[in-house]
Parts: sequence; C-alpha cells; structure tokens
Amino acid sequence: MEKLKEMILTHGIALDGGILKVDAFLNHQISPPLMKEMGDEFARRFQGESITKILTVESSGIAPAVMTGLALGVDVVFARKKKSFTMDDSLYTARIMSFTKGEESEFYISKKFLNADDKVLIIDDFLANGQASLGLAEMVAKASATLVGIGIVIEKSFQNGRKILDEKGIHTESLARIKSLDNNTITFL
Amino acid sequence: MEKLKEMILTHGIALDGGILKVDAFLNHQISPPLMKEMGDEFARRFQGESITKILTVESSGIAPAVMTGLALGVDVVFARKKKSFTMDDSLYTARIMSFTKGEESEFYISKKFLNADDKVLIIDDFLANGQASLGLAEMVAKASATLVGIGIVIEKSFQNGRKILDEKGIHTESLARIKSLDNNTITFL
Repeated sequence: MEKLKEMILTHGIALDGGILKVDAFLNHQISPPLMKEMGDEFARRFQGESITKILTVESSGIAPAVMTGLALGVDVVFARKKKSFTMDDSLYTARIMSFTKGEESEFYISKKFLNADDKVLIIDDFLANGQASLGLAEMVAKASATLVGIGIVIEKSFQNGRKILDEKGIHTESLARIKSLDNNTITFL
Repeated sequence: MEKLKEMILTHGIALDGGILKVDAFLNHQISPPLMKEMGDEFARRFQGESITKILTVESSGIAPAVMTGLALGVDVVFARKKKSFTMDDSLYTARIMSFTKGEESEFYISKKFLNADDKVLIIDDFLANGQASLGLAEMVAKASATLVGIGIVIEKSFQNGRKILDEKGIHTESLARIKSLDNNTITFL
C-alpha cells in the first residue's frame, strides 16, 4: 500500500535491534484517514471470504481492526491484556511474547464473543516473530472457529513471523513489507 | 444518543458496585458502525471549536476517538500505559486510578505529539470519578495546550466525575448519562 509506505518513509524511524518506530501515525499518534484506507484495503484483500468477526489485540491493533470491521460490516473483538473486574470466567487465553516490550503477557477473549460458527480475520499492527498472531490464532482454534487469514499493517520480513505463518498455510496479507532496517535505513521488500 | 442508549439497554449489564458491563459493543467486542455514529456525534457537538487533536487513553477510548478524529480531520493521540522500548524520554505523564480495575497506572504521552498550539478534545469511554479525564487534562496543561472539552461515551452520573469537571468549567458532552444502576437496573438521567 503506497500511502502507508510513504508514511513509513516520512515518519518512521529505524532503530537499532530491528525496531521500527512508527509512533507518529500508528501506535501512539494515529492518523484516522490512513486507518480508514488500511481498513478498506484489508476488506478488499479478504473480500468474498464471508468473514463474520475481526480479532485483534490491544492497543495498536484496534484502530486498523475497527476500520476493517466498518468496511466488512462485522464486529471487532480485541483480546485484553489483563483480567478486569468486569470480565467473567469464561475466557479463551493465550500467552504472547512482545518483541518490542521484551515481556510475555496473558491475553483474554470472552468465550461469548467467539464461537464455532465464526470465520475470523485477525488484524494486527506488526508482524515480527509472529507471536501475537499465533496467540490470537490459538484462541480462534480453542473456539473451534475458522481462521480465514491474517492482515498485518507492517511486516518485518527479516524476522521469522511471516515464514512461520506461511508454513502453517495461513493466508497472510501485509500492507507494507520491510526487507531490512540495517544501518538505520528502511528498505521495503 | 438514542442508538447508544438502545445498545446499553439491550446489551449492557448492571453489576453490583456501580459497574456497567458493556463488553458486547464497547470495551471488548466493538460495534464499528456504532463507533462511527459516536464519532460523528462528538464532531457535531464540538463543531466550530477548531480542534487540532484528539486525546484518549488506551484501550477502550481508541475506537470512538479515531472515529471522532476521522470526522473532524485531526490526528488522535492515545496515552500509553507503560513505557515501551520504542518511546523516548520526552514524555508527559500522569497517574490514573481505574475505577473498574481498582489500580493506579502511569500513563505517557510523547511530548512531540502535544504542543502549546494544540486545541485538544479528550475522548473516553466512561466517566465515573473523572480520574482518567483529569489525568489526560493534566497532560494537556503540562503541554500548555488548550483543552476544548471532553467527550464521554457513557457517563455514570451517580458518581462524582461529572460534578468535578463541571466545577472546573470544562465543557463535557456525554452520549449517554446513567442516573442509576441500583437493583441491577439501568436508568438514564
């Protein structure tokens, strides 16, 4: 997606350790028209798949997921990081290791919002080692729902997440694929 | 906002302790068309205010905030709960006590995304004791930016948040105002 690539080149910062900082438009400050375009693009790429639900993980996945849900006309569920008082005990859970934060967290989805009839599209902001996507896919499997595919805003193709998802035969669509962040320079695939 | 009230009556659950569970459409599962309507409504209520930025807090504020930003044509910034490796040290911070979670957390906004020229609209999912709104307003003040107002999806009018904001002279607009959750019954103001 050209508009996204332009935003990454203009506002993204390649840090050491394979980290791409995109807090100017994606995961701290958010550009709503860009989110809208991304949602429309995900809907286009997965059209005809009879998707019934979008699944994402708080917090940076929410904006692109909601715009995708708006385009496809389906509800969004975001996996929550911590059990709040208002959640009941009927939960699907998965432990997810964050590449950027360097810590593992437990995520929850209430069972009432994901069932065996659902055809699920997972949306997330980054694909690095694939841990978040795999954690969400694990919860889809626990619900006996069907995983239609995974939509990623920014894929770091130099890490192994894409390879893992491809090997599992999961239809993965990334709006921008980054070949390298070496020498603090952003290079697309 | 009638559509929102209908959703609250249909899907909301009044729990003991003044807690309203709306995880079916707002803070776990999200209804994108409802978020779009809410964003349009906030934009209408604050039109002519020359807003330059929407400020919210992760995670449940993000969806209504992004739709409001889309309607007003401005960027959204969400205060983040925890310092990640990708954030630098130039941060505005505030400690916010969560009514629902019963714990205090520190939130951050990167200084580069909020400055003295900004006219800020705060959007949040709930107004209970006003702690989240006041924490965000504190960060707006630290940035010497102008607080235009606060847009709330669901106000629990039986708690003191609205009174505190009114006493501070802050223009607060709530899309649904709940008078009481006594006897597990939802009553609007």
